[in-house]
Amino acid sequence: MPATPANPITFWFDFISPYSYLAWSQIHRVAAQHERQVIARPVLFASLLDHWGQLGPAEVAPKRAHLFKQVLRLAHRFNVAMSLPFAHPFNPLLALRVAALELEPAIKRQVIDTIFRAAWVDRLDVTDASIIAAALDRAGLEGQKLLQASQNPDNKAHLISATGEALELGLFGVPTMVVDGQLFWGVDDLEFLDAFLRGLDPLDRGITTAIANLPAQSVRPRARPH
Amino acid sequence: MPATPANPITFWFDFISPYSYLAWSQIHRVAAQHERQVIARPVLFASLLDHWGQLGPAEVAPKRAHLFKQVLRLAHRFNVAMSLPFAHPFNPLLALRVAALELEPAIKRQVIDTIFRAAWVDRLDVTDASIIAAALDRAGLEGQKLLQASQNPDNKAHLISATGEALELGLFGVPTMVVDGQLFWGVDDLEFLDAFLRGLDPLDRGITTAIANLPAQSVRPRARPH
Repeated sequence: MPATPANPITFWFDFISPYSYLAWSQIHRVAAQHERQVIARPVLFASLLDHWGQLGPAEVAPKRAHLFKQVLRLAHRFNVAMSLPFAHPFNPLLALRVAALELEPAIKRQVIDTIFRAAWVDRLDVTDASIIAAALDRAGLEGQKLLQASQNPDNKAHLISATGEALELGLFGVPTMVVDGQLFWGVDDLEFLDAFLRGLDPLDRGITTAIANLPAQSVRPRARPH
Repeated sequence: MPATPANPITFWFDFISPYSYLAWSQIHRVAAQHERQVIARPVLFASLLDHWGQLGPAEVAPKRAHLFKQVLRLAHRFNVAMSLPFAHPFNPLLALRVAALELEPAIKRQVIDTIFRAAWVDRLDVTDASIIAAALDRAGLEGQKLLQASQNPDNKAHLISATGEALELGLFGVPTMVVDGQLFWGVDDLEFLDAFLRGLDPLDRGITTAIANLPAQSVRPRARPH
C-alpha cells in the first residue's frame, strides 16, 4: 500500500455526480500548482443524503432539469468534454467499488478517469460490469481483474466505511475537497480552495466559531404565511 | 401601477437567502449592460422547499457551516459588504411583505436594498417591524407607512400567490432569475445569464428536450450498499 503523502488534498466523489466529474477534471491541475497530492476517496452520495435526510439535486424535477444545463455550461467554461449520461440517476455502486480499490496512485487516477469519462463523455452504462471492464481495457488497464478484485468483501467494506469517515469529517455532498482540515464543496469552491492554498483565503480565522455560535431565530414551521 | 417593461429580468428572492443578497448586489449591473429592467419578486423560500420536500441549505448542520463561509468568500470576490446575520434562519415574512408592495420601480429597488443591507450588512433583526421601519426611514423612505401598507390583506395575498406563480415557472430555490423564459439559479448562474444575454450560451437549443427525455435508471432505495 502506498504511503500517504503529507498534506494531500482528499477528493471525495461519487460517479453519479456531474459536479464530481467536473471537479475531478480540474483538481489535479490545482493540486500540482501547490505541489499537493490528490487522494481520491469514492463515497456513496446517496448514503450522505440518507444521513442528512436530504434530497439529491436530481431528485427534485425542475432542479434536475436545471442541473444538467448548469453542468454543461460549466463544462464549456472549463473546456472539458461532457455529455448527458446514459441515464440519471444511475446506480454507481459497482463503479465506486472499482474506484475504492487500493492501487498505485497513478493507476488509481487512471481507473477513476476512465470511469468518469465512460459515464460523462461516452454515455456508457457504468452500472454494467462488462462495460466498465471493457472501458478499462481500452485504457490499457486490466479490466476484468479490477472488476473481480472490486468484489472482494474487504473492498466492499472499505467503500461502506468511507461513508462513516465522510460524515465524521462533516461532508454533506460531493465533490468535497478536504485540505489542511478545511472542507471545500463543489465546483464553485475550486477557486476558494486555490485561494486558500495561496494563503489568500479572505476568511477571518474566527469565522468558524462565529458561524457555530450563530443562533437560529426561526425554524420552518413558524416561517409560513398565516 | 407601473407598466411591465418588455423582456425584463425577473428576480425571485427571499431575504433569508444570503445568495439572494449577493445576486441582488450584481443583477442591476448585469441588467443595465443588456438594457434590461429588473422586476423583483419576493417569494417565501420555505414554501418552495415545502413543495419539493427539500431541506434548505441552512437546515443541514455542516452545510450551514459551509454556506456562511462560501457566501463570505463570494462577497469578498464581488467586493460587496456582508456580515453574518443577527440569526439564521430567521422569519422573513414581514420583510417579504414590505418588498411585495406595489411601488414605483426605483422606490421598490431602494426598499429591497435597504432590507437586504439591514439583514446582511448591519446584522439587524429584520423580523421586527420597528427595526425595518427605522432602517427604511434612515434610507429616506417612509418606513411606518410602508410597514402599515404591507399588512394590507391584498398585499399579504399577493405574496402568498407568488409561491404558486414561482412553482408554475419551475422554481425550486432562490435567487432565480427568469429571462426570456430561461431560469438561472443562484449566484453561480450570474455568469451564464450574462452569457445568455450576450447570445453566447453554449447550450444547444435541443438540450431541454434531451434532459426531459433522460431516463432514470436507478432510484435511491436501490443505490445502497448490500
